[in-house]
Amino acid sequence: MKSFEILARDQGTHARTGRLQTAQGHIDTPVFAPVGTQGAVKTLLSQDLEKLDTQLILGNAYHLYLRPGMDVIEKAGGLHAFTSWNRAILTDSGGYQVFSMEQLRKITEEGVEFRSHIDGSLHFFSPEKVIEIQVALGSDILMCFDECPPYPCDEGRARKALELTRRWAKRCKDAWVARNPRGSGKGVEGNPQLWAITQGSIYPDLRRESTQQLVEMDFPGYAIGGLSVGEPRLAMLEMIQRSMEWLPVEKPRYLMGVGTPEDLWEAVGMGVDVFDCVLPTRNGRNGQLFTSQGRLNIKNAPYREDFSPPDSQCDCGLCARYSRAYLHHLFRAGELSALRLASLHNVAFLIKLMRKIRKTITGGTFQAERRIFLESYQGVAV
Amino acid sequence: MKSFEILARDQGTHARTGRLQTAQGHIDTPVFAPVGTQGAVKTLLSQDLEKLDTQLILGNAYHLYLRPGMDVIEKAGGLHAFTSWNRAILTDSGGYQVFSMEQLRKITEEGVEFRSHIDGSLHFFSPEKVIEIQVALGSDILMCFDECPPYPCDEGRARKALELTRRWAKRCKDAWVARNPRGSGKGVEGNPQLWAITQGSIYPDLRRESTQQLVEMDFPGYAIGGLSVGEPRLAMLEMIQRSMEWLPVEKPRYLMGVGTPEDLWEAVGMGVDVFDCVLPTRNGRNGQLFTSQGRLNIKNAPYREDFSPPDSQCDCGLCARYSRAYLHHLFRAGELSALRLASLHNVAFLIKLMRKIRKTITGGTFQAERRIFLESYQGVAV
Repeated sequence: MKSFEILARDQGTHARTGRLQTAQGHIDTPVFAPVGTQGAVKTLLSQDLEKLDTQLILGNAYHLYLRPGMDVIEKAGGLHAFTSWNRAILTDSGGYQVFSMEQLRKITEEGVEFRSHIDGSLHFFSPEKVIEIQVALGSDILMCFDECPPYPCDEGRARKALELTRRWAKRCKDAWVARNPRGSGKGVEGNPQLWAITQGSIYPDLRRESTQQLVEMDFPGYAIGGLSVGEPRLAMLEMIQRSMEWLPVEKPRYLMGVGTPEDLWEAVGMGVDVFDCVLPTRNGRNGQLFTSQGRLNIKNAPYREDFSPPDSQCDCGLCARYSRAYLHHLFRAGELSALRLASLHNVAFLIKLMRKIRKTITGGTFQAERRIFLESYQGVAV
Repeated sequence: MKSFEILARDQGTHARTGRLQTAQGHIDTPVFAPVGTQGAVKTLLSQDLEKLDTQLILGNAYHLYLRPGMDVIEKAGGLHAFTSWNRAILTDSGGYQVFSMEQLRKITEEGVEFRSHIDGSLHFFSPEKVIEIQVALGSDILMCFDECPPYPCDEGRARKALELTRRWAKRCKDAWVARNPRGSGKGVEGNPQLWAITQGSIYPDLRRESTQQLVEMDFPGYAIGGLSVGEPRLAMLEMIQRSMEWLPVEKPRYLMGVGTPEDLWEAVGMGVDVFDCVLPTRNGRNGQLFTSQGRLNIKNAPYREDFSPPDSQCDCGLCARYSRAYLHHLFRAGELSALRLASLHNVAFLIKLMRKIRKTITGGTFQAERRIFLESYQGVAV
């Protein structure tokens, strides 16, 4: 069985459905993965995520390495056992976290020396170390250690970042091949996979260069990195589109850090298969809800006496039994359950959206349904 | 059908099981009620509480009156509808809250003028007003407006408080009889009930006086108030015991603000039928867990690598799938799910404890099981 199989293609766009094999069973793509940075999707439990039929969640090598520490996770038998999550886990390498701590790190060719944001202790991440951590975590999909430059970023710096990313991807792959008992990383069924991350900021030529370099190395999957970091939306969409031209059509494409319902529809239409984003839980904790009628902030005054469900088209643990007025009250009263209910709804919204998107691709109605969704979602300012 | 029926009595103590009728169905006593001060048991949802087979929860007239406000709850159709909780609700009158704000309130014979702790706005609670609020909330069991003095409290002040409590209980009852369409408050099946609250601090004579005065007024249930406010445990237990001598044996007795597993066993043995306490959720948020082996603080260092369940004898949503090490990690990492898991476990622990206690009373093993429980619970310092 192939590690990734394309099952259906939309005729009018590049959208496709597929099946990604992991040791925890298969994942139907396009898929949205909620983010469990510290071994937990914020405010939600494994049982909540199972109920939503979540197929894949993210973990973060940087955060988990620092806390609880690899000794604890190894003794627990890996991240799946530690967190009681028996479906697929993709781990980010920690590159994004390490590079965003401008004051606390020192980059060399060998790797990055950095201080823990928790206790200031000194640590060193190399491509080899980051593979070692992700192997110990027991990830189903591991990511290469990349340099993710901030936005804005001049072309010189962006070029340096993609070149380091390329050299480190090579070292990651070598370390992975040496460590992986199956010796491949190419995603034989049940095998973990190591994916590469492309960079290039918002420079089309650099995007092409980075993508082509990594494609040459023949990874079983590719992430588009360095986007959704503050650049204009149109620049992001252009970079995704350009990246698609150079990524092999038969391999899974992962857009990191996206996102919004609008962007999910857009990027699926360009051929993206995998997404992750903290947005549903972060927005949830701020009282921002995705609904079929658009985004709403439940803390706003009009919801005080609105006894309709947050989203009348939703059957999640929030919408099935609580009103906007009740959720508004919980937020105003500072009840922690408010954060959980809103996060649960938002994650449910994106998981169900992806299920619907897959159905429209299979059914040949992707473009029509995208238009209907966006008209409803963007049409009303709530 | 009687509003309260005693079903079984323990031979060696005053423990009894009973059945309390409410419009939401019957409640098996002795019962522990989690506290949902602001219309939500902290960190838990109605679906969580239903899963634990929670029979009764508390609401608070003071808090709900201030936020979300009676207009919202009335428009929602009452507190049950607003909070999506279709089992029984007991509401505290708010006396405890109003009287504890020493700087913000002015007491007269008529009632208490106070400032909102939220926005400083001025409000007035009288016995009549407090009944009106609880009727609007749609409580199944309403409480009289009482003066709950702090601890310590000299005898003069304690006497003044119980006398005001008596006069206000009379006004509460009159207001209730006038308002209640069934005209009774005596707890005909399906009817809400108004219960009185006894006071008297830790003075046995005052306890007797307060209890006898209120018993004369013939309420369908009685709460022992003004305890668990900082007095020594033995003083509390003595006051409960003395109160029992004067409370009618055929009516339900409610011990407010208790408590710990030890105190629940003790007080049930004295004949108490109903309990409420914030302890399981407050302790939970602090990382303190009740377990069959005693209390433990999951944040302590030894649990970092302890992969056993928090309580091996528990099957709650925490213990059935997560380890002590994982919960320790969630607390250390500041994940909100930690607070929810620990609260869920503690509430489950007390609900299951009460179920077990009822079974021991019916089965004639109350004293033996109490001894076994306490030996295990107090025997080990964890």
